[in-house]
Amino acid sequence: MEEKETLKEYRMNYQLAYFDCDYTGHLSLEMMLMLMILASEKQNDSLGTGMKATQKFGAGWVILDYEGHLNGELPRDGENITVGCKIAAYNRFFVVRDFWLESAAGKQVATVRGMFTFMDLKKRKMTPIPEAIMAPYEQKATIRLPRPKSPDKVEVDDRWQSKDYQTRYADIDSNGHVNNARYVEWLLDALPAGFLADHRLTGFRLNYRHEVRPHSLVTSMVAPFDADADEITSQHVIQVAGQTHASASFDWQKI
Amino acid sequence: MEEKETLKEYRMNYQLAYFDCDYTGHLSLEMMLMLMILASEKQNDSLGTGMKATQKFGAGWVILDYEGHLNGELPRDGENITVGCKIAAYNRFFVVRDFWLESAAGKQVATVRGMFTFMDLKKRKMTPIPEAIMAPYEQKATIRLPRPKSPDKVEVDDRWQSKDYQTRYADIDSNGHVNNARYVEWLLDALPAGFLADHRLTGFRLNYRHEVRPHSLVTSMVAPFDADADEITSQHVIQVAGQTHASASFDWQKI
Repeated sequence: MEEKETLKEYRMNYQLAYFDCDYTGHLSLEMMLMLMILASEKQNDSLGTGMKATQKFGAGWVILDYEGHLNGELPRDGENITVGCKIAAYNRFFVVRDFWLESAAGKQVATVRGMFTFMDLKKRKMTPIPEAIMAPYEQKATIRLPRPKSPDKVEVDDRWQSKDYQTRYADIDSNGHVNNARYVEWLLDALPAGFLADHRLTGFRLNYRHEVRPHSLVTSMVAPFDADADEITSQHVIQVAGQTHASASFDWQKI
Repeated sequence: MEEKETLKEYRMNYQLAYFDCDYTGHLSLEMMLMLMILASEKQNDSLGTGMKATQKFGAGWVILDYEGHLNGELPRDGENITVGCKIAAYNRFFVVRDFWLESAAGKQVATVRGMFTFMDLKKRKMTPIPEAIMAPYEQKATIRLPRPKSPDKVEVDDRWQSKDYQTRYADIDSNGHVNNARYVEWLLDALPAGFLADHRLTGFRLNYRHEVRPHSLVTSMVAPFDADADEITSQHVIQVAGQTHASASFDWQKI
């Protein structure tokens, strides 16, 4: 009989404040991702494998891909939510984490899968994950990983709409680059005015290729789409000086 | 013998997360202001005079001025802080609130005084504060108010440095305009590169004149100053289409 591993789950309670919510009064997508990362940092800390431990190896976690699914409206300002996370799988270079978000009523309103790599902070490149960092999870490494789905492959052409953004000091996190969740602000802001008010996000895929450094001029681009359709997948890229730093596909339902 | 009022104080505990902090790992000024407003909203809610109550009057609170004093470094990521607030004084049209921030060790690290007016949300103009909104504070109205100090009076000329910012959907709050704390991101970002890393904020005065609407192009301007001085007061304005929407003076000490 095969022994089944019990994966270590972590749950964080959090009361949403107005600044966690967008203009509709619901938790914003970027804050949802920020809270999920916070939960995983707390899980790491609880196991003694947090930032202090990874810094001893001169390394840190870097997000590569997110795939998310939303089940109805996100929770509202003031609501007490639970953010959960666990490691779905890992190998020598990558960790796949599963995140979920529960409303106050206990409904699972969002699931997100994220793939992370371990980066040498001096050489700015991938480095094997030390055994000491993974051991406290008491979980076996695997060769194959349940990778998050990638954004759709699309080619930017001159029919795409674009908007420019100056990075602000407040976008920069303690790693010295723009925090990954901030990309979502640029991505969604490039959508037509009013679009977010009458469409609900049902899913997303988000791929990070290059970091965005302080004092960058960022271009957020979105492919043309039929805004009257009942179901829409919008295609996006984030560029700096003509180079793609991130790409995303967002799935929408008309409200 | 004169009867002395006991002012109703409210205290909120909060654990700082990485997304509340700037790239130096300390609580950012804009999040400090956001947390103070959150504390005052919670105080209002606890007295039954929160948003639901003010909305019955078709009105809401609008910040006019902040004056702040910082006593050393702001708390760091992970620290358990306390945010306090009380009403310092009020009259028929204005409320002055005092806010403070305590570190985990119980040190008062910041005090902020804010003046608010009550605004009819349809007419977009000042309206008398209903007695029902103030009664639960059991505090007498006064004629004279301890107003926050204003920013220094300065004239913009072409020696000022300026930077343009496209507002993002994430800047917009549920009132449909840019949240006031977001102005701080533009104000501070206009300072010379590296300035924030070797200067510590010791005080600020911030005046709000006009709201910033969605899809605005915002210009953040800063007067020239001697960056080598040990003590600096930087002068700032926020403009949209040539009109001043906010002004600020920030006091700095070289680290």
